[in-house]
Amino acid sequence: MTLAVFDTAAIKKTATSQLVLDTVRDALIAHAEGHTSVPPPLHLDFPETDGDCHVKAGWITGATDFTVKIATGFYRNPALGLPTNHGLVCVVSAHTGQVRALLDDRGLLTAWRTAAAGALITHAMARPDAVILAVFGTGEQARLQATWLAELRPVSTVLVHGRNPHRAAALCDDLISRGLPARPASAQQAAAADMVITTTPATVPVLDAAQVREGAHVTGIGTDMPHKNELPPALFHRAELIATDDHAQCLDHGDFGHAVRAGATARDGDIAAGLLLGTPVDRPDTAITVADLTGVGALDAALASAVLDQLLH
Amino acid sequence: MTLAVFDTAAIKKTATSQLVLDTVRDALIAHAEGHTSVPPPLHLDFPETDGDCHVKAGWITGATDFTVKIATGFYRNPALGLPTNHGLVCVVSAHTGQVRALLDDRGLLTAWRTAAAGALITHAMARPDAVILAVFGTGEQARLQATWLAELRPVSTVLVHGRNPHRAAALCDDLISRGLPARPASAQQAAAADMVITTTPATVPVLDAAQVREGAHVTGIGTDMPHKNELPPALFHRAELIATDDHAQCLDHGDFGHAVRAGATARDGDIAAGLLLGTPVDRPDTAITVADLTGVGALDAALASAVLDQLLH
Repeated sequence: MTLAVFDTAAIKKTATSQLVLDTVRDALIAHAEGHTSVPPPLHLDFPETDGDCHVKAGWITGATDFTVKIATGFYRNPALGLPTNHGLVCVVSAHTGQVRALLDDRGLLTAWRTAAAGALITHAMARPDAVILAVFGTGEQARLQATWLAELRPVSTVLVHGRNPHRAAALCDDLISRGLPARPASAQQAAAADMVITTTPATVPVLDAAQVREGAHVTGIGTDMPHKNELPPALFHRAELIATDDHAQCLDHGDFGHAVRAGATARDGDIAAGLLLGTPVDRPDTAITVADLTGVGALDAALASAVLDQLLH
Repeated sequence: MTLAVFDTAAIKKTATSQLVLDTVRDALIAHAEGHTSVPPPLHLDFPETDGDCHVKAGWITGATDFTVKIATGFYRNPALGLPTNHGLVCVVSAHTGQVRALLDDRGLLTAWRTAAAGALITHAMARPDAVILAVFGTGEQARLQATWLAELRPVSTVLVHGRNPHRAAALCDDLISRGLPARPASAQQAAAADMVITTTPATVPVLDAAQVREGAHVTGIGTDMPHKNELPPALFHRAELIATDDHAQCLDHGDFGHAVRAGATARDGDIAAGLLLGTPVDRPDTAITVADLTGVGALDAALASAVLDQLLH
């Protein structure tokens, strides 16, 4: 039997944002309820070429399939005319161990599940009347977070803050072409939005906690390694509700962990993000809420399996 | 660009046993000299279907490619008419992180590198005049170890010991058809051969150390998990030279570790098997020598890369 391989064109043609959002919602809830199996990831470093490889596996307990995801980041690739990130997902039967298919997705599904998780949690935690969104960062995640949040709730304006003004302007043009009013903003303006999503690889916080307004919600999705840090400890200190997608992981290498180690918040003062998706948040209008998302391997499994079912349909 | 996928038929047509033996020899030496990168493997268990998945990565430092290998074992598969083991190897550029190809090898390369390592080490450590080989076990590894050792040195007779007499007889017929004289043997007869290779999933030792003759060499390749054990601690106690393919790994889950924990041998009394391949062993004629091989991920990388180069040639 020949191994089935599907490329990004096939995946994009098959999977709708609705499928992604629904699948990620269910997977986040399953993870919050402890119905997932996510072993510690495997890492390889290539210091001489400034590259790394991460392998993550995940399973929603009882699901038909599990996945093994290989993701590489080689940071000198752009100079060679190659994309920095590469990757594929191997979908394996949890009943027989037979490989069902390979999704040669070049990191697309990871980008989608990250964007879906950010949009879902931001929508669940923000005030119902919040309409102004700010994104920090100007890459694919900034675009996806904005467009998918706009599928979940009305967004009146997107404020885009990036270090590179040309890229910020380009993202605004892109969002406008998708029907989303957008304009470049300073860090101070962006920090004062109703809803803030940070999507950067920053190693020092990108916003000033004092500039975040009462009643605002902030979601950080860029911090996925111990040396990265987007959200300042002082923001967690001000927050009345803190959600994490994976408590242990966020303590280990998320913004939440930086805040806990700085003594800015109590170690147990958080709630699993997935639980908020099942139960609407009861939040005072003036509360600041924060979500720290570090990425959960079980989401890869759920999404790859759902996409493959569509592809084979 | 479409992902290149090669199946077992293509791999078998391309790779010669000479290519495998040469590649594994070089990789064992590189590993012994510390020129490899092998992160801790990733595991997933599926207790309800009696299955597991192991993901191993490896890199020969400075080599063009690294590999990520996915291997599953689902132990109820035979009842479903499916093979127990499944797997594939992903070959990735260590310069750019781009996936070069997938070898849909169903575990073939793992079997080959295991057999090559066993044959190479047995040949390096056995007395030059040793000609009688015994294998414990009747599976694919028993066959490969015998036939590949016979490519490295004259083998006059293969004694086959297996719990199932029909399978032992079948393996003898197979070896005879390949020009290797072979006959079934009791455990006692097999333990008394010049060279002994154990290839079983045993959880209690398969031979009696007292029955191993002076001057004999024994290689264990079946013990790859803590609960397995093929070679008795008393054998390590009698041995004058002990080789391991990976010291830490053999201590953790090899027969060597059982012997050290039983107090039968000193913790530092071993030598890296790879070093023996560069330097012939100076062994007294009456010495007993033992090799414990647990499998090294860097060998997968070297072999997959060499096979892929042949496939793309």
